[in-house]
Amino acid sequence: MRLLLLQLNPTIGDLPGNAAKIREGVVSAGRGSADLIVTPELALTGYPPRDLLLFRRYVEKALETARALAADLSGFPPVLVGAAQPNPASVGRPLSNVALLLRGGEVVGVFGKTLLPTYDVFDEDRYFEPAVGPQILELAGTKVGISICEDIWNDADFWNQKRYHSDPIQELVKAGAKCLVNISASPFTAGKQQLREKMLSGIARKYGIPLLYVNQAGGNDDLVFDGRSCAFNASGSLIARAAAFAEDRLAVDIFGNAPAGVNPDDFSPEAEIWNALVLGTRDYVRKTGFARALIGLSGGIDSSLVAAIAVEALGRENVLGVLMPSPFSSGGSVTDAQALGSALGIRTTLIPISGIMYAFDGALAAEFAGLARDITEENLQARIRGTLLMALSNKSGALLLSTGNKSEIAVGYCTLYGDTNGALAVIADVPKTMVYRIARWINARGPAPVIPESVFLKAPSAELRPDQTDQDTLPPYDLLDEVLHRLIELHESPAEIVAAGFDPAVAYRIAHMVKIAEFKRKQLPPGIKVTDRAFGTGWRMPIAAREWDLPPKG
Amino acid sequence: MRLLLLQLNPTIGDLPGNAAKIREGVVSAGRGSADLIVTPELALTGYPPRDLLLFRRYVEKALETARALAADLSGFPPVLVGAAQPNPASVGRPLSNVALLLRGGEVVGVFGKTLLPTYDVFDEDRYFEPAVGPQILELAGTKVGISICEDIWNDADFWNQKRYHSDPIQELVKAGAKCLVNISASPFTAGKQQLREKMLSGIARKYGIPLLYVNQAGGNDDLVFDGRSCAFNASGSLIARAAAFAEDRLAVDIFGNAPAGVNPDDFSPEAEIWNALVLGTRDYVRKTGFARALIGLSGGIDSSLVAAIAVEALGRENVLGVLMPSPFSSGGSVTDAQALGSALGIRTTLIPISGIMYAFDGALAAEFAGLARDITEENLQARIRGTLLMALSNKSGALLLSTGNKSEIAVGYCTLYGDTNGALAVIADVPKTMVYRIARWINARGPAPVIPESVFLKAPSAELRPDQTDQDTLPPYDLLDEVLHRLIELHESPAEIVAAGFDPAVAYRIAHMVKIAEFKRKQLPPGIKVTDRAFGTGWRMPIAAREWDLPPKG
Repeated sequence: MRLLLLQLNPTIGDLPGNAAKIREGVVSAGRGSADLIVTPELALTGYPPRDLLLFRRYVEKALETARALAADLSGFPPVLVGAAQPNPASVGRPLSNVALLLRGGEVVGVFGKTLLPTYDVFDEDRYFEPAVGPQILELAGTKVGISICEDIWNDADFWNQKRYHSDPIQELVKAGAKCLVNISASPFTAGKQQLREKMLSGIARKYGIPLLYVNQAGGNDDLVFDGRSCAFNASGSLIARAAAFAEDRLAVDIFGNAPAGVNPDDFSPEAEIWNALVLGTRDYVRKTGFARALIGLSGGIDSSLVAAIAVEALGRENVLGVLMPSPFSSGGSVTDAQALGSALGIRTTLIPISGIMYAFDGALAAEFAGLARDITEENLQARIRGTLLMALSNKSGALLLSTGNKSEIAVGYCTLYGDTNGALAVIADVPKTMVYRIARWINARGPAPVIPESVFLKAPSAELRPDQTDQDTLPPYDLLDEVLHRLIELHESPAEIVAAGFDPAVAYRIAHMVKIAEFKRKQLPPGIKVTDRAFGTGWRMPIAAREWDLPPKG
Repeated sequence: MRLLLLQLNPTIGDLPGNAAKIREGVVSAGRGSADLIVTPELALTGYPPRDLLLFRRYVEKALETARALAADLSGFPPVLVGAAQPNPASVGRPLSNVALLLRGGEVVGVFGKTLLPTYDVFDEDRYFEPAVGPQILELAGTKVGISICEDIWNDADFWNQKRYHSDPIQELVKAGAKCLVNISASPFTAGKQQLREKMLSGIARKYGIPLLYVNQAGGNDDLVFDGRSCAFNASGSLIARAAAFAEDRLAVDIFGNAPAGVNPDDFSPEAEIWNALVLGTRDYVRKTGFARALIGLSGGIDSSLVAAIAVEALGRENVLGVLMPSPFSSGGSVTDAQALGSALGIRTTLIPISGIMYAFDGALAAEFAGLARDITEENLQARIRGTLLMALSNKSGALLLSTGNKSEIAVGYCTLYGDTNGALAVIADVPKTMVYRIARWINARGPAPVIPESVFLKAPSAELRPDQTDQDTLPPYDLLDEVLHRLIELHESPAEIVAAGFDPAVAYRIAHMVKIAEFKRKQLPPGIKVTDRAFGTGWRMPIAAREWDLPPKG
């Protein structure tokens, strides 16, 4: 049985464009290309469509689009298209998440999703009623078990803790499925492909039947979908793997055993995250209708890395670097940023901020009379820069990219309405230690290093007062990142972190900083998720709340 | 049977403080005060605790607190305390949402929630495994049916469309319940209390048994809980109603028929929303550990109303008004704001921004050479003001309140990092037409008008260029608000709005403006929810998405 997978990058809301992508994939493969053509989950609407699903007309229009697509493709092989449809019953959630079968010019079958992820970044119980019973497609006398994304993530032999009471895959096999097809929109996190392939391989082997897994590609706001659709034979061996971080099309002889079209997948962690950030940046800019970006360059490692990502994503002719030194900026701030700009081949512009600082000082002199300088004046510098960048963005139509890393966003070492300004926070989910590793990797990749060596060597600093360094305020970054990983990704309390051997003073202080920075994170731009727990849609914390795990007294 | 309800205002995360509130309520009522004392849903953790629930230690600590509370209250009547506990099974969501029964010094019973709201602002499927089967408490030989919030919102006779397949209330009655107790944390929206009482009365009457409903009071970030706990006799008549928008304690003879402690509830829509905004503002400032607030006063209706709310919430001595005229400000901008400040009795300060505008113009002169002035320069003024306000906030430790209304936030008629700056967006869910109505109401309430009559009479304007008015850019506000209500609260598409008789040019243009402003709303402070659909946690929209309902061609 020949299956053709279309690993697509849909744009949310773009029903005609998404349908055109499917049509083009099917037509260019040809009339006799396959027994079944398979698209990712919600391929028509794009995933995640979020509250667009609450607009009844959006769902109706998507179904009208599916019917028109079926008519267009009447002479071609049957196509499974991810879509949503209204729940016709008077009880239950408003919609179903389905795969529609387009065959002979019409929509002739509907296969529903049973397990609806509602954790981390996922909200599917908000929209969808679960399917009931095995979703079997009869194809040339063979029972093909259809499942959608999460349906395949609840295998009792793979997980210690199961989130759901039913296992749709087991039910499919019991109902006689001789082959499994899973359509997915599974967002990237670092290292996840290895987990996926291990799990999928185990399921194919356990049931002794082959399996095709079709994932979405592309960036949608905070989420990057990394593609890497794959297939396993009945022994659990990998027989196909589509491209990573790109659209792809791949034909699979699902009952054959010969590996065919197995793309290599030997990314280092640095390379894998780099690719996700490039794709996430490119698609965010493109899908919001922009082409160009600007970045404030401080001569530090964060803005240097973001500039390199932007150049790879958008082309050097579409990136502007803005240098905004103050009287507290080091000499290296400007020279390093200029060297970076030269190495990347981007235009830079220099706008000193001291005149504006004096104007603010003058305007505030009466109110601040007799009061010492404090963090207020540091924040002012960051907000002047943020305002200049937005003025350049407004005037030029280039999107502002913000450059804060996950470590500083976690502890609030950033100025709201200042350096946090931007349409997209490119490295908001990349810990500072990983920022350095990726920067080293990109320099080593060549052809020539782009980030000046002095950027790696100088002590990280916000340069908002004389001789300031990050480590005046923060623990060393390797320690900070280890504690933050436990707090944010593992949801450990400071008491648990202390029990694991960390200094209580450090653990409680970091937890306190994370807690009081929630109000800043509430107002940040979307950040590209690369870890198991990113700030943003997967981190939903109250603001007006007390700290609940305080250091022991005494 | 004597039931005592404690209508509490817990602070999220403050386990000792929330336990102290329960203890104080029980102890001050006395040892023989009731057969059962009832607190709201999740009274120990505060509602909504959101992702604090993913910290295992938080849930454990809450249970430790519950056990200590039980020991403290061993000589007092049994108490039902809202809490969360881990799901002990190896399958399912991590927690249960429960009422714990504290009696004789111990936790002796657990009653779980069955229906888990996961729509609008609610995310309970993210955390909780549903309870199975009727949750009955035997009390002095009487079967009391226990339910938690959403459990009572799925009555087949009340709703045309049921969200859930089971009806826990019907199951309780079938299992022999002779009286119903529902513990809730039901957020305020305008007019909701009438719906609640109609529904609850209907359930009591339908089953012929009395019903006690205990709600939370107080503000938590975007949500205000309005209290108004109530009881109905077996005929469905209201026999008790606790205070609105405040903590309260009320004893109810649940099998008696005599009305006792029925607080009046005759708010006008304006008064009801006003009270919600005052409580929401007071609790946000207080629960974040602040006492004072500042507000940019433009002489317009929005900032005038927010200042009046802040004074009522925090006291006039805790509110600072900041006037920041530019060369484009009308004379009335300053005089009206000063008159408002005088009428409210707050301190005001005046900081002209022209010097800073010139400094920015100078810094940007080279980059902007030869380019026409446009919205960039308008946004600059707003961002200068936003930066000044944040400097005053940083230096003084007063929270900045932002003043944008729902209509302008909907269409993006606001400057991100400018007038949107703030810790709390007080009237972000109040349409402009309602802003005027509430302002009229507060002036009429007396003792004397606080908002100058000239503020009502002048044409609304952002005053960012000469002779600008809002209606240069926007349709008239009564028309705008009607279309926005259909788009946002009813999820109608522009095509549906046109079909309802609206001008296509207006409907599609407004929908377009709403769509392209999603990136701004992503970065707004929390706003206080008063309508059925507020921006924020209940409005989850993609940003990098295409418009899907475009005007017909030709």
